[in-house]
Amino acid sequence: MTVCAAMAMSNMTVVDIHTHMYPPAYIDMLASRQTIPLVRTFPQAPDPRLILLQSEAQSLEEARDNPAAKPPGRPLTSHYTSLQQKMHFMDTHHIDISVVSLANPWLDFVDASVSGAVGERINNDFSDMCRLHPGRLFFFGALPLTAPLETVRSSIDHLKGLKYCRGVILGTSGLGKGLDDPNLLPIFEALAEASLTVFLHPHYGLPNDVWGPRAEEYGHVLPLALGFPMETTIAVTRMYLASVFDKVRRLRMILAHSGGTLPFLAGRIESCIIHDGQLVREGKVSKDRRSIWDVLKEQVYLDAVVYSEVGLGAAMDASGSDRLLFGTDHPFFPPLTTDEQGEWESVGMNADAVARAVGEGSAKAMGIMGANAIRILRLDEKA
Amino acid sequence: MTVCAAMAMSNMTVVDIHTHMYPPAYIDMLASRQTIPLVRTFPQAPDPRLILLQSEAQSLEEARDNPAAKPPGRPLTSHYTSLQQKMHFMDTHHIDISVVSLANPWLDFVDASVSGAVGERINNDFSDMCRLHPGRLFFFGALPLTAPLETVRSSIDHLKGLKYCRGVILGTSGLGKGLDDPNLLPIFEALAEASLTVFLHPHYGLPNDVWGPRAEEYGHVLPLALGFPMETTIAVTRMYLASVFDKVRRLRMILAHSGGTLPFLAGRIESCIIHDGQLVREGKVSKDRRSIWDVLKEQVYLDAVVYSEVGLGAAMDASGSDRLLFGTDHPFFPPLTTDEQGEWESVGMNADAVARAVGEGSAKAMGIMGANAIRILRLDEKA
Repeated sequence: MTVCAAMAMSNMTVVDIHTHMYPPAYIDMLASRQTIPLVRTFPQAPDPRLILLQSEAQSLEEARDNPAAKPPGRPLTSHYTSLQQKMHFMDTHHIDISVVSLANPWLDFVDASVSGAVGERINNDFSDMCRLHPGRLFFFGALPLTAPLETVRSSIDHLKGLKYCRGVILGTSGLGKGLDDPNLLPIFEALAEASLTVFLHPHYGLPNDVWGPRAEEYGHVLPLALGFPMETTIAVTRMYLASVFDKVRRLRMILAHSGGTLPFLAGRIESCIIHDGQLVREGKVSKDRRSIWDVLKEQVYLDAVVYSEVGLGAAMDASGSDRLLFGTDHPFFPPLTTDEQGEWESVGMNADAVARAVGEGSAKAMGIMGANAIRILRLDEKA
Repeated sequence: MTVCAAMAMSNMTVVDIHTHMYPPAYIDMLASRQTIPLVRTFPQAPDPRLILLQSEAQSLEEARDNPAAKPPGRPLTSHYTSLQQKMHFMDTHHIDISVVSLANPWLDFVDASVSGAVGERINNDFSDMCRLHPGRLFFFGALPLTAPLETVRSSIDHLKGLKYCRGVILGTSGLGKGLDDPNLLPIFEALAEASLTVFLHPHYGLPNDVWGPRAEEYGHVLPLALGFPMETTIAVTRMYLASVFDKVRRLRMILAHSGGTLPFLAGRIESCIIHDGQLVREGKVSKDRRSIWDVLKEQVYLDAVVYSEVGLGAAMDASGSDRLLFGTDHPFFPPLTTDEQGEWESVGMNADAVARAVGEGSAKAMGIMGANAIRILRLDEKA
């Protein structure tokens, strides 16, 4: 019996808190753009293509001129855009509730003059989708971070009023200077005040040269497997060192991919802080300071998208099994050798890691697979 | 009772496999250099200073011209250079055996025409030190990687003949292109053939811009706590993707800082490989392929320098408690508020993590604290 079949047979409510969609307003905006990122349809490809990277500019031009050229970017299959497909995926994997979010790069690139309006349309799209499946769908909204602070504040007010919104998805760039930027503090405060949880998700990775001259031989493994979690770890550590968690004590964040590598590195971070001459001289290492461990246990939740019992064990040891939340990362990592309409191995790996780490059907498993998310994100409040 | 006092009272043999020294031949070579890295003495500082970074060039010039200017670099205290100090440190912390190694940046910057000779002098220095304390000191040699292959091979032959040598310390640069460089294969083969274990240690970190515009406020925390382990993780993953472990099946590596973040990320690496279209198309994801988990359990050892029970737990789950090796990272991370001649908090943090993870005095603790190193590095063979 597969893990997903076991999920079906139990009474457990399964919640997927890490699952993405590009709603119609987002695709429309990308299709209308003349510069990357953008969406284009090519006669030589069945699905529209999402072109995200500046490095794809040349192949974009070639594909325009030559209908035989390999189209750039990646396909926007129905998994990215169709609500029906999302529901099918949920049913196939016995997922009762999904908290959907816009996939990267969110609104990070949108011109300041329009990002407020674009964000509002996208958030309304998500709200409409949730209304079609009451109780089965909730969402994390997108913030128009390129817009003036007042527009961002209005967006938070708007999200607060949307019945199925439970937080916002955030990249690590913030206003362009990272999440330790003091100009973000009023935004974090407004989010905390509105009880909107921040789902922190990577997009920018690490500079390409760290992967070395042979990187092209390794597909996307290095930037995806290492760059993404390292980006998240750096972003949160910078927030911690800038005392953001102390300054906005009610801020709550779900960290993608079980915190990147934060549970594993927290001890080293603490040791480096205690042993840093500059920080000690500046009086920043006081005895009553909250450690990164405190933050992990008090203001951070971790998703369980770590694909192993080993990683999950460390995540639990760091934050507590009551702060771990199952997720799938759908529609990323589709199966390559089996039918995309069937079970996805990537989902099974994460569900299986939970079962092996805490025992299938155990109270902890029930928590991680769904009950924690219901409690933390108030998914039993439908009104 | 402190952890170190408990170590003293037990019958356990304690081995420190991660402990550095700059022997006389290395300091002499650095003192004779006109370009960074170099060693200089300044009237305004009690100890000679080691200047490693190109970014310190300006403050080096200023300190030369102005005796009141803050001297660049970091102090080379007796902890870095004195054998007597190393023995005092070992006695204070009840360490029975140390496997010493040259600290970064090793010989990575040394001109090809002299690196062979410099390496030989340094390795002889280490050998001489070990001979003064038979059975208490062993060492990992340094390789003259900038020299021609034949010189590197001769260095390996030389090291193989040195009674107390048990391996080599290696950075992640290799011959300048990283450890997935095919030109390194004959060197890995020669090391494996000579039963010399590779101690892989970071030095290059990550590009500075990943730490953001406020990095200077955080001392050295970000590059040391995150950059170092991330560098190690990237280097080993590149080796794995280039099939180095399959090609040199007898290669054995100890990874500094418990593998950087490899135990935590191994699941994600495996998932990204299985789901990579390019690798699957190219037939690189065959069913009988050895996974990164296999390599962690068969060809990798992890030091226990991770400063937490959480990290240590993941390291054990990934590689097995019989492959974990206690280390101190001496003389880095000295205590800032207590006497350097007494107990070091950084050592206690790691010893304490072992005691808490597997139980003080347990068979596993005996293994991690010393017995594993004795078995793996043949530290009971004195001849």
